[in-house]
Amino acid sequence: MSLLVTGSVAIDTVKTPYGVSENCLGGAAVYFSMAASFFTPVRLVGVIGSDCPFDLAEVFAGRDVDLTGLEIRTQSKTFRWAGTYHDDMDNRTTDSLELNVLAEAPPRVPDSFRDSKFVFLANTAPRLQHQLLEQVQNPAFVAADTMNCWIEDHLDDLKSLLKKTNCLIINEDEARMLANEHNLVRAGEKILDMGPSVVVTKKGESGSIMCCADGDKFILPAYPAAEVKDPTGAGDSFAGGFIGHLAQSGKTDFETLKAAIAYGTVVASFTIADFSLNGLTAIDRSDIDSRFETLRKLTQF
Amino acid sequence: MSLLVTGSVAIDTVKTPYGVSENCLGGAAVYFSMAASFFTPVRLVGVIGSDCPFDLAEVFAGRDVDLTGLEIRTQSKTFRWAGTYHDDMDNRTTDSLELNVLAEAPPRVPDSFRDSKFVFLANTAPRLQHQLLEQVQNPAFVAADTMNCWIEDHLDDLKSLLKKTNCLIINEDEARMLANEHNLVRAGEKILDMGPSVVVTKKGESGSIMCCADGDKFILPAYPAAEVKDPTGAGDSFAGGFIGHLAQSGKTDFETLKAAIAYGTVVASFTIADFSLNGLTAIDRSDIDSRFETLRKLTQF
Repeated sequence: MSLLVTGSVAIDTVKTPYGVSENCLGGAAVYFSMAASFFTPVRLVGVIGSDCPFDLAEVFAGRDVDLTGLEIRTQSKTFRWAGTYHDDMDNRTTDSLELNVLAEAPPRVPDSFRDSKFVFLANTAPRLQHQLLEQVQNPAFVAADTMNCWIEDHLDDLKSLLKKTNCLIINEDEARMLANEHNLVRAGEKILDMGPSVVVTKKGESGSIMCCADGDKFILPAYPAAEVKDPTGAGDSFAGGFIGHLAQSGKTDFETLKAAIAYGTVVASFTIADFSLNGLTAIDRSDIDSRFETLRKLTQF
Repeated sequence: MSLLVTGSVAIDTVKTPYGVSENCLGGAAVYFSMAASFFTPVRLVGVIGSDCPFDLAEVFAGRDVDLTGLEIRTQSKTFRWAGTYHDDMDNRTTDSLELNVLAEAPPRVPDSFRDSKFVFLANTAPRLQHQLLEQVQNPAFVAADTMNCWIEDHLDDLKSLLKKTNCLIINEDEARMLANEHNLVRAGEKILDMGPSVVVTKKGESGSIMCCADGDKFILPAYPAAEVKDPTGAGDSFAGGFIGHLAQSGKTDFETLKAAIAYGTVVASFTIADFSLNGLTAIDRSDIDSRFETLRKLTQF
């Protein structure tokens, strides 16, 4: 089924103990689209400035990623982010942030995208996520990401958005903050009460927990990657593999959701093995399926 | 098969956000024995002073725990530990520590225990663990725990001990310190090179990773406990469930080791639900088996 993503396209500069990647392609919509394209056609909605050195048609060549929703504003500059990961790769500091075009009006969802059935609203102001979602006619499954600043300063907007989403994909610190609850199982249950029927809490190298409104729960460790060069994009790649598998299956029952979590986990493990999108462009679908089976063997008893 | 544990018997005072438990029974050998006794008969080797207010025969009444190896030194005082767990329950501070009888010569392994086939050397100085192990004639499977101070200050003793152990059960910070490697998979592999054929790295609420010398690996999340009142004894209860299942099975093949990790995980989840040993004394074997099946359902896809 059709899969729409709204989110950022970024020019990233990333420092990790393994090296520096200057002015490389990044952004939530880019990582998500690349990850999801292994599973299903993707429709990208995003906006860049005239300074963007990347030809996204070339970047996604050979993949079924529809760029009709990529707006290029000639008077604007592309979103830029620079960050440093420290020794343990668990946390990062933002060295600089230029919102640029992201501080302007959001892009429009093209008419040809309005019938999308699966939707991922990557992280941005919940009010903007809302505006983007309203342009989709009759979505079957809407998933959203958010972050600490919106929980702190735009909680009402976020709660209003959550009433219209089927799934929130969030990291553990954000889940704790949103639910005001340290225990992640109870936090997931409290967030379910805010509207979504599925809450996926990402725990970085400790994996993820999925809580569903009917009481079903699923816990999966991260894939034990021996090589982690650059964690940037791991969360959006996870979401791309997760929702990509759902859209490909056209189903959101618990068994399909569990497999989708495993696919998201596997795709993210490829992303972090190299800088920028290199981890994802180096593989094909058979690599994902093979590692999916490995993950199954590593975790089943 | 026969299972021997050597380790501390303690008088603990524990503060958590859920309350205070003053002068309660604790210690690695006690938690381990209680946990393992759900699976197999246990032989306890430990030492207490005349001040110990607990009658261990009464504590273990109805369980197959042989206390022949419990030495009572009338001129000595029992080991005491006081600690506080903070809001997130992830880390604790030691408020006071009185080694007392633990600073003296270690207890003797009784003659009737020397034919033990499964052995757990709970945390103490590696030199003492060595001395205790030498009193066991022909063990089939020896597992040991250790901690940061021995890695820092008695590394040669520890490395010498590791050459005589089949399994090291260690927490994630200790694994990283011992291997001088942040990535836990690579850390596990480096520790395997030091001697053991099985390395189990405990990650607290994020579960555990088992690395085996033939390349087999297993990753299991922690049981998603909704209630965590007192994490004291979780690691030793995990070890008790883990080795208890191995000793009961009389096998240490990979399939048995995986099930043992799951049993350890489940037993630890009962321990942390209440103060001191209350979480373990409140249950029976059928509760463990039932939660084992729940854990399987939570993690299989």
